[in-house]
Order: sequence, then structure tokens, then C-alpha cells
Amino acid sequence: MNHNLTEGILSQNHQSIAKAISLIENSNDSDIESILSSIYNKTGQSYRIGITGPPGAGKSSITNELINLLSDDKSIAILSVDPTSPFTGGAILGDRIRMIEHYNNPNIFIRSIGSRGSKGGLSKNINIIADVLDAADFDIIILETVGVGQVELDIVESADTTIVVLVPESGDDIQILKAGMMEIADIFIINKSDREGAEKIAVSLNNFLSTIQHEDHIWSPEVIQTSVYNKTGFNKLIKTIFDRYKFLDINGGREAKHRDRYISQVHDLISSYLTNAFWNDNKEEVLNKELDIEIKNRKNPVALAKKIINE
Amino acid sequence: MNHNLTEGILSQNHQSIAKAISLIENSNDSDIESILSSIYNKTGQSYRIGITGPPGAGKSSITNELINLLSDDKSIAILSVDPTSPFTGGAILGDRIRMIEHYNNPNIFIRSIGSRGSKGGLSKNINIIADVLDAADFDIIILETVGVGQVELDIVESADTTIVVLVPESGDDIQILKAGMMEIADIFIINKSDREGAEKIAVSLNNFLSTIQHEDHIWSPEVIQTSVYNKTGFNKLIKTIFDRYKFLDINGGREAKHRDRYISQVHDLISSYLTNAFWNDNKEEVLNKELDIEIKNRKNPVALAKKIINE
Repeated sequence: MNHNLTEGILSQNHQSIAKAISLIENSNDSDIESILSSIYNKTGQSYRIGITGPPGAGKSSITNELINLLSDDKSIAILSVDPTSPFTGGAILGDRIRMIEHYNNPNIFIRSIGSRGSKGGLSKNINIIADVLDAADFDIIILETVGVGQVELDIVESADTTIVVLVPESGDDIQILKAGMMEIADIFIINKSDREGAEKIAVSLNNFLSTIQHEDHIWSPEVIQTSVYNKTGFNKLIKTIFDRYKFLDINGGREAKHRDRYISQVHDLISSYLTNAFWNDNKEEVLNKELDIEIKNRKNPVALAKKIINE
Repeated sequence: MNHNLTEGILSQNHQSIAKAISLIENSNDSDIESILSSIYNKTGQSYRIGITGPPGAGKSSITNELINLLSDDKSIAILSVDPTSPFTGGAILGDRIRMIEHYNNPNIFIRSIGSRGSKGGLSKNINIIADVLDAADFDIIILETVGVGQVELDIVESADTTIVVLVPESGDDIQILKAGMMEIADIFIINKSDREGAEKIAVSLNNFLSTIQHEDHIWSPEVIQTSVYNKTGFNKLIKTIFDRYKFLDINGGREAKHRDRYISQVHDLISSYLTNAFWNDNKEEVLNKELDIEIKNRKNPVALAKKIINE
């Protein structure tokens, strides 16, 4: 990679960072490899926080409050992941407004990226973009995403701390259980807690969490009620975010997360090298020819896969 | 595979189907291969409907209404995909109640499965279970899932028709856009439409959909307001579901979906054969040794992946 680009990233130059992210978004393997090669050894310092939850829960407003409360003494990068619809094709209005608002603040970097890249390329790319922001030495990286698609699980892999934002209308505890949210949340936020039902959902979540056996070295998820409208709950939220940071530091949790990301990056890269090296025109043709045969006479997928492998 | 099991599946014997699904859930490659081999050529007949949406939107209640209204003259299989939490480990109470209710009806088969199988194994397994239900010749297969995780996108791949269930509280059209729902929905349901805000969200969605250029051979998503409480909207829903079926039939849409699933099953199988054949103890050890080195001196993931490939 261009030496100046690397230097720019490492000195937290916003233009260089933006350029690197665009290169990664374009999914050109050689660009991604050269960026990752040149910045990887500088990663491991930032605190990566994932914020996810259903549409309309108020994730952007909460992120904005965090920016307002933290940016005086912390540098913050926000990566907003939009499951881009083919009809929108870019950053959503709200993100644009937010970007303009903080445009001149050197402590704050905001970027929207689409999530629908090449199949399977998503999680790899989010992680590599987070690595760029990490190498650029932001104190905090906020990975913000909305709730349809495979993005949430990638956020969990990418983040040191995962925050799930719910609202009083999110349903009862059975629904939350059913959505698998217990498994991914380190911190629950019940936002819009000025509305009816907030207390009920918080009590219900806390009751459920209290039935789970607590172990040392395992973080017990916290439930926090916030209201962006009334500006309540944010001091407790920030305290909990940093309690979690200390907890991870004491228990080696951030190194473990970094290690997991390394392992899965290596596995993903190898899978994609193997698959790319395997498929060629001849093999594609074997598959395509089989598709011309009607279903009842077609080789089943297992038989065809084995045939293509063994040929 | 046991010949009796195949016979049982093909004659829609519920016990045989349940047994086959359990074998597939256990992710034993040789079981999966033998089941898929013996039933694949009988697939391609069922109408596969995916129902997804945020927790609390009422997906189960809608499915129940569909069962009540359709099961007199159609056989229906319901596959309810729960992103299983480690704290629950099985079917959720609501599903159990539902299963008991329909236990003696030979026209209805209901099964809950967890979504958190081996990494990457999820979509393959849901598709194969749907293939079993298809070979068993159910008229309709309903794939029902809740809204966190990578399940939704797999549903879209598996289903001929994808229904996204929203509620009046789901937020404005920007939020729905942002969640990427425009991209996946063939039918939108605004459920709990007895509540305030339902009309507004329906109008807003319809306005947005009307701005999209309509083309022949491309389905225009429909917006339907339902209320399980007042039992309204379900006749229109069922009409739309079968309009969509006719539309797909006229335009070859079901064959195209079947073809796409075949292609991705073959690709997935080959990727997993390649990856399994590649990794061995020596290669794992190269990766593990690198993890013992501190981050700033460690090979970056690209360099290590290439080293392991080239060794």
C-alpha cells in the first residue's frame, strides 16, 4: 500500500482513514491485503463497542448521546452499518446529518457503510475496517447496526462489548429470549423508558438474569433504562461501559477477543483462497450442465459436489 | 439411509420426518448426505413461505391463523427457527403449546429447531430440513423465524415468498429502509393494526413502494394490515399469498428459487469439503504458535494465511 496512506491512518488523518475504508468496502482483495498487512501490528488498543437492536429503538440517538458525553476527553470513531437496500444505495439521511454536525471535530470520525457486500465478505470487511480505526488509535470504536440480517452476529464477534437496545414495545421476556438476545448482550438498554412498560420489561429481564448462575470471570449482563428525551440513564450507561472495560482488562477479555478475531480472519482468508483456487470454468460447467436436467433425474447436491471434487 | 426412514418421509409419516430432522440437526455429515441423497429427487413441489420480523411482532399468531384458515384443504409443515439461547436449549413454551394443540391433526406438522448450529452450518441445514418436508409432499412449508441473527437472510434464500411482519411501533419508513427490509419482503404485514399508527406506517410504505419502478416479471411487494385480535386482514393475506404463488408459477419463479438453492447447496458442500480436507494438526499448530507471539510482532492475518497455504 501507498506509504502515505499508512502514515495517514496511523496519524489519525480523517481523509486517509476514509480512503482506506472505501478501498476495503470495494472488496478488492489486493487492496484489503495490503491495508491489513501494513496496519495490523498497530491494532489492539481501541475499545470496540457494538450497538444493535430492532429498527426504531433509538440506536443513533444513544450513540449521539455517547458522543456528546465522551468526546471531550476521548477520540471516538463511529462505524454505522446499514443493510443497504438496492433502493437507497448509500448513507441514510440521519447519518448524513450527524456527519455534518461533527464534521470539524478532529476527535470524532463517523462513517456509514453498507452491509450487503459480496456473499460472505461482510464480517471480514467490518472487522478489517475496525482494525483500521484501531490502528488509527481511536480510544473508542462504536459499531452501530440495525436489526435485520447477519450483521448482529458479526458485531458480537467484532466488539469487546455488545449493547442491545430495546424499547418498552419489544415484547415480554419470552420474546427477547426467543430472539437470542440473551446470548449476545453484555448490556441491555431499555430506551424510551419514559413510555409505559419500560419498568416491566426491565424487571422481567433482571428477574430472568438473576436466575442464571453467576460465575467469576464471566460478565453478568446489566439492564439500563434510558430516555434520550429526558436525558436520563446515560451516566449509569457510561459507568457500566467502563466497568465492563475494566472487567475485560482484569480477566484478559480484550486479548481473548483480539485472538478470536485473528483466528477467524485467518480461517476466513484460507477458506476464500481455497474456494477461489478451486472453481474454474470447467467445474462451473459441470454444475451448469446438471441444472439443465429436470429435478427428478438430477444428481442430488451431495453426489454432484463429490463428483466435482473428484474430477 | 435406512430404507424405512425414506419410505416414511415420502409417505408423510410424522415420526419418520421428525427423526430425519433430528438427524439433520445433529449435523452429522454422513447422515445429512444420506438423507439428502435419498429424498432430493422428490423435492420441488411444496410452496415455501418464510415469515420473519422483530420479536413481539406476532409471527406465531399469524402462523396460527394461517393454519386455522388453510389446514382444511392443505397439508402444512411449520418449521420454527429459534436462535437458541444457551439458557433455554430447546423449543420455546409457545411452540410447545401449539404443537400439543395440533398433535392429532395429520395435515399439520410442527417442529422447532435451534439456529445456532456449527458455524456456517445453519443455512445448509434449514434448507435440507425444508427439502425433507418438501419430499414429504406438504402443500405448504412455513419457515418462521425471529429477528436477530443471520437467520432472516437464510429464510429469504430458502423461501419462495418472504413475509416481513411489522407492528405500528416499528418506526417510520426510513427505519424500515435502514433495516434492509425493503430488500427481503415480498409481502409486508402490519400486524396489531388495531393500534395507533398502523395506517400511517402502511400509507408510508405504500407511498415508498409506489416510487419504485415497476417491471413485468418482478413482483411488487404488497402491504397488508392484520389484527389477530380482531381477526381482520387474513382473507386479503391468504389471497396475496396465493397471488404470489401464481405469479411465481407463471414467471418460472419457483424453478429459479429451486435452482438457486441447488447452486448454493453444491457451493456450500464443496467449501466445507475443501476446508475440512485442508486443516490438520500441523496447520492448526502453525496458527496456534503465531498466537503466542505478541500482537506487534505477530504476522498479520493475510501473511499467516498465505504461509499456511503455501507450506
